[in-house]
Amino acid sequence: MTAVLAPPPAEPAELDALGADLANAARGEAAGWDRDGALPTGVRHTAAAAGLLAPDLPVGYGGLGATPAQLGEVCARLGGVCSALRALVTVQAMVAAAVLRWGTAEQRVRWLPAFARGELLAGFAATEDGAGSDLAAVDTRIRAVAGGQQPALELTGVKRWVTFGQVADVLLVLGVLDGRHTAVLVETDRAGVTRQPVAGQLGLRAAQLAHVRLDGVRVPAANRIAPPGFGLSHVAATALDHGRFTVGWGCVGMAEACLRDMAEHVLTRRQGGTLLAEHQSVRALLGRAAVDTAAARELAARAARWRAAGAPDAVAATVAAKYAAARTAASVAGDAVQVLGAAGCAPDSRAGRFYRDAKVMEIIEGSAQVAELHVADHLLRRARATVPGGLR
Amino acid sequence: MTAVLAPPPAEPAELDALGADLANAARGEAAGWDRDGALPTGVRHTAAAAGLLAPDLPVGYGGLGATPAQLGEVCARLGGVCSALRALVTVQAMVAAAVLRWGTAEQRVRWLPAFARGELLAGFAATEDGAGSDLAAVDTRIRAVAGGQQPALELTGVKRWVTFGQVADVLLVLGVLDGRHTAVLVETDRAGVTRQPVAGQLGLRAAQLAHVRLDGVRVPAANRIAPPGFGLSHVAATALDHGRFTVGWGCVGMAEACLRDMAEHVLTRRQGGTLLAEHQSVRALLGRAAVDTAAARELAARAARWRAAGAPDAVAATVAAKYAAARTAASVAGDAVQVLGAAGCAPDSRAGRFYRDAKVMEIIEGSAQVAELHVADHLLRRARATVPGGLR
Amino acid sequence: MTAVLAPPPAEPAELDALGADLANAARGEAAGWDRDGALPTGVRHTAAAAGLLAPDLPVGYGGLGATPAQLGEVCARLGGVCSALRALVTVQAMVAAAVLRWGTAEQRVRWLPAFARGELLAGFAATEDGAGSDLAAVDTRIRAVAGGQQPALELTGVKRWVTFGQVADVLLVLGVLDGRHTAVLVETDRAGVTRQPVAGQLGLRAAQLAHVRLDGVRVPAANRIAPPGFGLSHVAATALDHGRFTVGWGCVGMAEACLRDMAEHVLTRRQGGTLLAEHQSVRALLGRAAVDTAAARELAARAARWRAAGAPDAVAATVAAKYAAARTAASVAGDAVQVLGAAGCAPDSRAGRFYRDAKVMEIIEGSAQVAELHVADHLLRRARATVPGGLR
Amino acid sequence: MTAVLAPPPAEPAELDALGADLANAARGEAAGWDRDGALPTGVRHTAAAAGLLAPDLPVGYGGLGATPAQLGEVCARLGGVCSALRALVTVQAMVAAAVLRWGTAEQRVRWLPAFARGELLAGFAATEDGAGSDLAAVDTRIRAVAGGQQPALELTGVKRWVTFGQVADVLLVLGVLDGRHTAVLVETDRAGVTRQPVAGQLGLRAAQLAHVRLDGVRVPAANRIAPPGFGLSHVAATALDHGRFTVGWGCVGMAEACLRDMAEHVLTRRQGGTLLAEHQSVRALLGRAAVDTAAARELAARAARWRAAGAPDAVAATVAAKYAAARTAASVAGDAVQVLGAAGCAPDSRAGRFYRDAKVMEIIEGSAQVAELHVADHLLRRARATVPGGLR
Repeated sequence: MTAVLAPPPAEPAELDALGADLANAARGEAAGWDRDGALPTGVRHTAAAAGLLAPDLPVGYGGLGATPAQLGEVCARLGGVCSALRALVTVQAMVAAAVLRWGTAEQRVRWLPAFARGELLAGFAATEDGAGSDLAAVDTRIRAVAGGQQPALELTGVKRWVTFGQVADVLLVLGVLDGRHTAVLVETDRAGVTRQPVAGQLGLRAAQLAHVRLDGVRVPAANRIAPPGFGLSHVAATALDHGRFTVGWGCVGMAEACLRDMAEHVLTRRQGGTLLAEHQSVRALLGRAAVDTAAARELAARAARWRAAGAPDAVAATVAAKYAAARTAASVAGDAVQVLGAAGCAPDSRAGRFYRDAKVMEIIEGSAQVAELHVADHLLRRARATVPGGLR
Repeated sequence: MTAVLAPPPAEPAELDALGADLANAARGEAAGWDRDGALPTGVRHTAAAAGLLAPDLPVGYGGLGATPAQLGEVCARLGGVCSALRALVTVQAMVAAAVLRWGTAEQRVRWLPAFARGELLAGFAATEDGAGSDLAAVDTRIRAVAGGQQPALELTGVKRWVTFGQVADVLLVLGVLDGRHTAVLVETDRAGVTRQPVAGQLGLRAAQLAHVRLDGVRVPAANRIAPPGFGLSHVAATALDHGRFTVGWGCVGMAEACLRDMAEHVLTRRQGGTLLAEHQSVRALLGRAAVDTAAARELAARAARWRAAGAPDAVAATVAAKYAAARTAASVAGDAVQVLGAAGCAPDSRAGRFYRDAKVMEIIEGSAQVAELHVADHLLRRARATVPGGLR
Repeated sequence: MTAVLAPPPAEPAELDALGADLANAARGEAAGWDRDGALPTGVRHTAAAAGLLAPDLPVGYGGLGATPAQLGEVCARLGGVCSALRALVTVQAMVAAAVLRWGTAEQRVRWLPAFARGELLAGFAATEDGAGSDLAAVDTRIRAVAGGQQPALELTGVKRWVTFGQVADVLLVLGVLDGRHTAVLVETDRAGVTRQPVAGQLGLRAAQLAHVRLDGVRVPAANRIAPPGFGLSHVAATALDHGRFTVGWGCVGMAEACLRDMAEHVLTRRQGGTLLAEHQSVRALLGRAAVDTAAARELAARAARWRAAGAPDAVAATVAAKYAAARTAASVAGDAVQVLGAAGCAPDSRAGRFYRDAKVMEIIEGSAQVAELHVADHLLRRARATVPGGLR
Repeated sequence: MTAVLAPPPAEPAELDALGADLANAARGEAAGWDRDGALPTGVRHTAAAAGLLAPDLPVGYGGLGATPAQLGEVCARLGGVCSALRALVTVQAMVAAAVLRWGTAEQRVRWLPAFARGELLAGFAATEDGAGSDLAAVDTRIRAVAGGQQPALELTGVKRWVTFGQVADVLLVLGVLDGRHTAVLVETDRAGVTRQPVAGQLGLRAAQLAHVRLDGVRVPAANRIAPPGFGLSHVAATALDHGRFTVGWGCVGMAEACLRDMAEHVLTRRQGGTLLAEHQSVRALLGRAAVDTAAARELAARAARWRAAGAPDAVAATVAAKYAAARTAASVAGDAVQVLGAAGCAPDSRAGRFYRDAKVMEIIEGSAQVAELHVADHLLRRARATVPGGLR
C-alpha cells in the first residue's frame, strides 16, 4: 500500500460514526467483493485513512485510543456487512498489538504510526502445512547472517492461508531460530518473497488470502520482535488473543445482521396468504436465534470489560466469547438461510455468504475444539486453586 | 408463619454475606429436604428473619433495598444449593413486587413490612387445570358480596401447583370478577380454604407445593390489588416478570454449582489410571458447559442492569435470561450427571437433584416455548419500528 | 439433449456397478464442475445412455426396473461425489414418476422411453417468487386455446430455480387452469420460453439452474398430465415425493463421503506429533457423526422398503428420511470442514462443497420446517385413529 | 426367588403377545412401583414363569428361542411401561447369554434352564467404586482354595449398583484371580454375601438396586465361567453386549411411549381456546421427536438383523443403537415433560419418570462418551483396512 496522506486521527468519540459510515458504504457492495475475491483498493485506503484498521493503538502512536468495547463495536458493524472488511481490521490490529506489547521503543516508533494510519498493511503469517492448530510445529527456518552493514536474518519456509497476504506490505512471520520460536517482521517487497493467491475457498473470499513462500528472504535483525524463544508464547500469543477478540465481535455483528434479515423477510413475505411472521414455528426459531445472539454479544462485552480492566481471566474470556460468537454466527446464519429459503441461497444473499464465512470463523484463530479445551483448562486451574488442601 | 421477632433490616452491603451464610448452612441439608419434601420451619424462619425473602423491597417498607443485581446474586447463591430455598425467595418477592407496584398506599403499608420481615409467607396462586401457560383462561370466580361491616369478596375455584402452598400465610389469587381478571390477597386461615399437599413430583420437591381449593372464601374487599381488569395484565404480569428474574438467577446458580461438582469430580477421580480431567472428551464437555453457563450469567446480568435502569426492554431481557438460564441449567445438570456417572445418579447427588429441578424451571413462570415467542415478538416489534416506511 | 443411441437397458443387477462407474469417473472432476457451474454435456449423456437418470422406470418403458432400494443406492453413490449429478437423476426420475403414475397410456408410451434412455432431459418447474414452500400459490396461468388442428394450452408465468433448467428438454410445469391446479409438459424449444441461467448460488452450483419465463407458450392439450385440479395434489405430489426420496438418499451419500474424508484425514495428519485420530475429542466427534449417518441411512432404507411394499405410510417415511438425511448431511459436512480445518475450507474440498450443498438440501423439495409439521400431522392422524372413542 | 412351577415354554409366535400382556398389566402400576422402589414379587414371578426373562435362550435349554428382533420387541414393549421391568429382562438375559456363550456343557445344563424358567433370578456384579466405565480396574479378589470335597474359589470385594441386587439369586461376579480377570457365578445365599439396598436414586427406582459386599465368599470352582483371563474380555463383554442390546430396545419403547403421551395430550388439551395440537411450534417439536424416535428404532432393528446374521459389525451396531436410543429417550422424554407441563412433572407422570430413567440409560452398560469412542474406533479400523497401501 503506497503512502496515504492521512488526516489527523479521529477522536474516539467519532469512532463509531466512522465505523458506521464505512459499513454503510460497504453494504451494497460486499456481495460483489465476495464474488470478485477482493476488496477494492479504494476501500482499503478509505478504511486505513480513517484510522479504522488499528483504532485501539494509543494516540501517542497515531492511533485513536479506542477502548476494547469501542474496537469491538467497530468490528461488529463491519462484520455485519463484510467479513473481509472486518478481517482487514483483525490482521492489522493483531500485528499492531503484538508490536505494541513486545516491540522495543524503537520498533514501536518505527512501525506503529504506519500501522495506525494504514500506510502499511500488515499480515500475520504463522500457519503452515504441518502447523495449523498446533503452531509449535512451524518449520520456517530463521538464521542469523552477517549482513553488510548490519546484522541480518534470513527466512525460508512456506506460510499458508495468510489473510490479505496478496496485498500486505509487511508480515509478522513465526519461525524457528536456533530451535527457538521467533517472530520477525518481513516486508513483502523483499527478494525471495513469492505470493500465491488463493481463490474460491469456502468463505472470507474477499480477504485476498495468499500462500506466501519465503526463499532465503533477508531482513535486518532489527525486524525481530522480542527475543528468540518469545515468538510463539508471547508475540504470536498476543496477536492471536487480539485476533480472537475482533473475530468474536465480528461474529456478533454477523449474527445480528442475520437476525435483521430474517425479521425483514418474515415481516414482508407471505406463505399461503399468511405473513411468515405469523407462523409460530418461524417465530420460535427467531426467538431462539435472538437469545443466542444476545448471549454472544454479552460474552463479547464481558471480554471487552475484562480486557479494559487488565483482568487475568481476560484471555480465557476472549476465547469463550470468540467460540460462542462464531458458533452462534454459524447457527444463526444457517437459520437465516433456512428462513429465507431460495432467497437465502441466491447469489447475492448476505445470509448465504455469512453461512460460509461463519464456518471459517469456527476454525481460524483457534478452532472450536481448541477453544473448548482452553476454557476447560482455565476452569480446572481455578478449581484446583480454590479447593482447600488442593486437588490431586 | 407465626410472628417472628425480626432484627433490624440488614444493610444492602451485608446482603451477599447473608445469602452466603444461608447457602452454606443449607449445603449439607438440601438433599435431605428434597427427600423429605419440605424445608424445615426453622430454615424458613431464619431466611425470613434475615430479610432474605424479599430483599429488594425498599427500606421504607422494611426491606433491604437490594438492587436487581444484588437480588440476583442472592438467588444464584441459594439456587446453587437448594431450588426450594431459592423458590421461597421467588414467591415472596414476586408477590411483594406486585403489591409494591399495584397496591394502594394503605395496602403497601399493611402488607409489605410483613413480607419484608417474613412475618407472612406469601404464595402466588394463578395456575388452574385449564389455565397453565394461558392464564387468561382462569376460572376462579370472584364476586362482590355485601359483608357485615365492610364490603367483601367471595372466591371459589381450584388453584394448582402453588409453590409453598402448604405453608403460605397469604396467597395472591388470580380470578375473574364480572368478566374481568382480578387479583386478590387471600389469607389461608380463612374459612373455605383447603390445601392438598403435592409430593413426589419431578423436581422442586422441598417447595411444599399444594393444590388449593377455595370454597366461597370471603375476604375484605380491601384485599383486592388493583382494579378489576388489571389482575392479569398488570398484577400477575408484574409478579411473573419478577418471578422469572429470580428463577433465571437461580438457574445460573444451579449451572455454576454443577460446573463446580464436575470440576471437583474430574480432578479427583481416575479412570484406567488416568485422572478424568485428563480425558480430552471430558474436558471438551466441560468447556462447552462453562461457556454456556457464563452466557447465562451475562444474560441475567443484562436483565439486572436493564431493570435497574427502568429500560423498556427489561421485561423481554428477563424472559430471555430466564429462558437461557433454565435451558443451560438443564443441560449442564445433565452433563454433570453424565460426568459423575453413578455418583450423579446416587440418592444424594446435587447434580441429579438439579437435573430434575432444572426441567421444572424450563416450564414454570413461562415455558421455554412461550419465551421463544415472547422474544421473537419483541424482536419483530422493534424491527417493524425501525424499517423505513414501516413493514406490512 | 439430442437423441442418443442408447444401448439396450442394463439389467438391474448391473445397476449398482453402473452407478459406481459413474461415481468413480466423477470423483476427481466434481469440484471443477462446481466451480464452472455446469456438468459437462458428455457426463449428462453418459449417465443418460446408461439408463441411470430414471432407472426405476419399468423395463416395459425402457427403464431398468430398479427397486426403490436400488434407486436409493445409485443416488447415494452419486450424491457422495457430486450433488448436481445426483440432482440430474432426481429431476428426471421425479418427472418420469409423475408421468408413469398419472399419465394416460398414450402419454406414457410417448414420454417414458425417452426419459428412460435420457433422450429427453426433464425438469420440474413449480416454484415461483410467491410460491416456494406453498406451491398452492402458483400464479402461472394456463388457458385452453383453440389451436389449428388440435386443441392447445397456453402458459404464461415465471418459474424460478429450475434445476437443470438451462438444459432441460421438457419441463413439467405447475400452473392454474380455470382456477384449478394443472400440470403440463412444456418443451423448452417452443416459442415463448426464455431461460435465465443462475450462477453463484450457495450450493448445487453445477446443477445449471435457471429461472424460466413462459410468455404465452403454446403446447398441445395432450401435454397436460392428469385432469385439471390434479396438478398439485396428485401430479406434483408424486413428483415431489419421488424427489424427496432421491434427495434423501443423496444426502446419505454426502454424509458417508464426509465420514470417509474425516477418517482419512485424521488417520494421516498429525498435530503436535500426535495423529489426529488419537485425539479423543476428534474421535468423539467422529463417533457422533457416524451414528447420525447410520441413522439417516436406516431411515432411507425404511422408506425404500415401505415404498416397495406400497405401504400407506411410505410418503411420511420418505419425508422423515429426507428431513433426517439432509440435517445429517449438513451437520456431518460441518463437522468434516471443522476436522479438516484449512483443508476443509480449501477451494477443492469436498467437505466444503457438501457443507454448501447440504444446506440447500434442507430447503428444497419441502423444507425442514415443512417436514416437521408433515411428520407430526401423520403421527397425530394415527394417534387419533387408535385412541378408543376418538380424540377431540 | 423360590422355585416356580413353570408352564411349558411358549412358542416364539406367542412371545409378542406375552410381552404385550405383561406390559398391559404393568401399565397402571409402574408409577407406584417406582415410588415404592420395588417390583412386586408376583410381577417378577409372572414374568419369569412366562419365560420372558431370557426369551432368547434356545428351546433346548428351556428358552423360547426368540430371535434378536423378537427379544428387542419384548424389551420395547416393557421399556415403554416400566424401565425396571425391562431391566429385569436385561440382567437375566445378559447373564444367560454369557453362560450360553462361555459356559461348559455342564454349566449350561446346570444354569440355563433355571434362568429360562426364571427359577433363578440372575444379577450382574461388575461395577466397583474405582471401576465404573473402566471395568479393567476391578479390585474384587478371587483366590483358589482347597475346599473340603471339591476345589473352591473365595471372593472378597464390594460391588456397587447391582440391578436387582436386592433379590437376585445368583450374581455373575467379575474379579481378579492371579492377576487375571475372571468371572464367577455366586449364589447370594452363601455365607459372606451382604446386600445393602439402594433407594432414591435418580431413575430405575423399582429395579431394587443393591451394593453387594463379598467377604471371603466361597463357591465351588465349577462356578467359574470360562478360564481365568477371559472374565472381562469374553464373559463380561458378552454380557454387556447383550445388555446394551436390550437397553437400547427398551429406550426405543420409552421414546415411543413418550410420543404417544404427547400425542394424546395435545389432542385433548386446549390452550387459549386452541387445541395444543393446533399450535405449530408444538407440532414442530412433535415432528422432530417422531423422526428421532423412528431413527432409534431403525438402528435397533439394524443391530437385531446383524446379530441374527452373526455379522462381525454387530457389536458396534449394538453400541450405536444403544447410544442413539438412550439419547433419544432422554431428549424425547424431556420434550414430553415440556409439552405436558405440570402434568409431566406430576408424581405419576410417565414422561417425568422416563425423563429420570432415560438419563440413567445414557450412563449404564457403557456411557454415551464411551460409546462415541467405540463407534469411532470401529469406523477408523474399517477405514484403515480399506485405504490402499494402508494408513499411517
